[in-house]
Amino acid sequence: MVTGPIGLDDTGSPVDAETFERELRSVPERRYHHRHPFNLRMHRGELTPDELRTWILNRFHYQRHIPVKDALILAKFDDPALRRMWVRRITDHDGTEDDEGGIARWLRLGEAAGLDRADLLAGEKVLPGVRLAVDGYVNLCRDGTPLEAVAASLTELFAPDIMTTRIAAFEKHYPWIGQGGLAYFKSRVPQGRRDSGEALAFVLDRARTRADQKAALAALAYKCEVLWTLLDAVDRAPA
Amino acid sequence: MVTGPIGLDDTGSPVDAETFERELRSVPERRYHHRHPFNLRMHRGELTPDELRTWILNRFHYQRHIPVKDALILAKFDDPALRRMWVRRITDHDGTEDDEGGIARWLRLGEAAGLDRADLLAGEKVLPGVRLAVDGYVNLCRDGTPLEAVAASLTELFAPDIMTTRIAAFEKHYPWIGQGGLAYFKSRVPQGRRDSGEALAFVLDRARTRADQKAALAALAYKCEVLWTLLDAVDRAPA
Repeated sequence: MVTGPIGLDDTGSPVDAETFERELRSVPERRYHHRHPFNLRMHRGELTPDELRTWILNRFHYQRHIPVKDALILAKFDDPALRRMWVRRITDHDGTEDDEGGIARWLRLGEAAGLDRADLLAGEKVLPGVRLAVDGYVNLCRDGTPLEAVAASLTELFAPDIMTTRIAAFEKHYPWIGQGGLAYFKSRVPQGRRDSGEALAFVLDRARTRADQKAALAALAYKCEVLWTLLDAVDRAPA
Repeated sequence: MVTGPIGLDDTGSPVDAETFERELRSVPERRYHHRHPFNLRMHRGELTPDELRTWILNRFHYQRHIPVKDALILAKFDDPALRRMWVRRITDHDGTEDDEGGIARWLRLGEAAGLDRADLLAGEKVLPGVRLAVDGYVNLCRDGTPLEAVAASLTELFAPDIMTTRIAAFEKHYPWIGQGGLAYFKSRVPQGRRDSGEALAFVLDRARTRADQKAALAALAYKCEVLWTLLDAVDRAPA
């Protein structure tokens, strides 16, 4: 992945909102896992069924921690209006009486790919590198500032595009996974647009100093490393 | 307040569920703030309007931290079904599109009592002892086990009764606070019943060892101390 300095140098004053947003967008543009070799192979239809299952099982470890990290972010907000906005992310994944939620949809993807639901839930086959990557993200959301934790979520700026590409790739290359298995990817297109829009507005509003802006960019780069490292571990998994 | 040992001694094996539930209920029975002199004066109609306002303003500092501590508890649960149950507590306080929520109701109580909404929101007049008590509770929910954090919420076993008493006391003794100001107390009667029932079932299920049972009892006693200390600070506030 691309490494090296991210965005702004150390001069004193904050950049204007337009420049800051451009810098924010450029981080996942260069570092998001849409560029990872494993993701590119997935979308070209080059994964074996076993490789695909390894990814689905390991990525589930990430998915099931999304509501945990979002609850940690929620606990940082002192404004009920902000919490009302953010709590929807938790119900999006955990579900409600009327909606099964993202975790249940991912379990359906796993079953459609031939994985055992009990194996997914037990999590015992999750790779160490994946556990560490997810721990890193959860701990950033536990220990970071509200600005850092929200900025880290801005990988979602790129989620709708990667999901759209992935849905087409699965339909073309992995038709043995039925349409029902793709429900998670489909739900994330509108959710990712809405969530990233809200998070971007928060970050643009809260990053008042140059140091704030740099911290937000660094948190977003860290999050990209989490996702990249997760795919590294999956890519190197023993067959 | 009552101090001294809580419930179980140090012998090895866990007590049966019935005995444990009786021990759990006996903690707030003896230590909950329904026995605090300030609460007794409030319910006898002996508070001056200024004393009542001091209580409302300071207790708001507790109220506004309820969703924060509940988000910290939420982040401890790895089961979507448990999170779906607990997340409702957050929306109960923060509100939804259809329901103003408990924090808005408490603000209405403050305004009905003649407090300035901006003063309530600014929080600058909150007493140091109240801040420390609330910090203690939030930190228990941040750093404790899921069992301890949920057990601490079991003061709600006594909340419906204290709310029913309080509504009658306000209607009788403080009629200058209109009915609209009592909406928070009224909403907590059914919410407290439902919440404490769910929390009690969780604690009875999760406390498997004698050490678990003792930890749950200690957490509930600590929570009683939080509420008691809050009223101590209010009771001693300079006029």
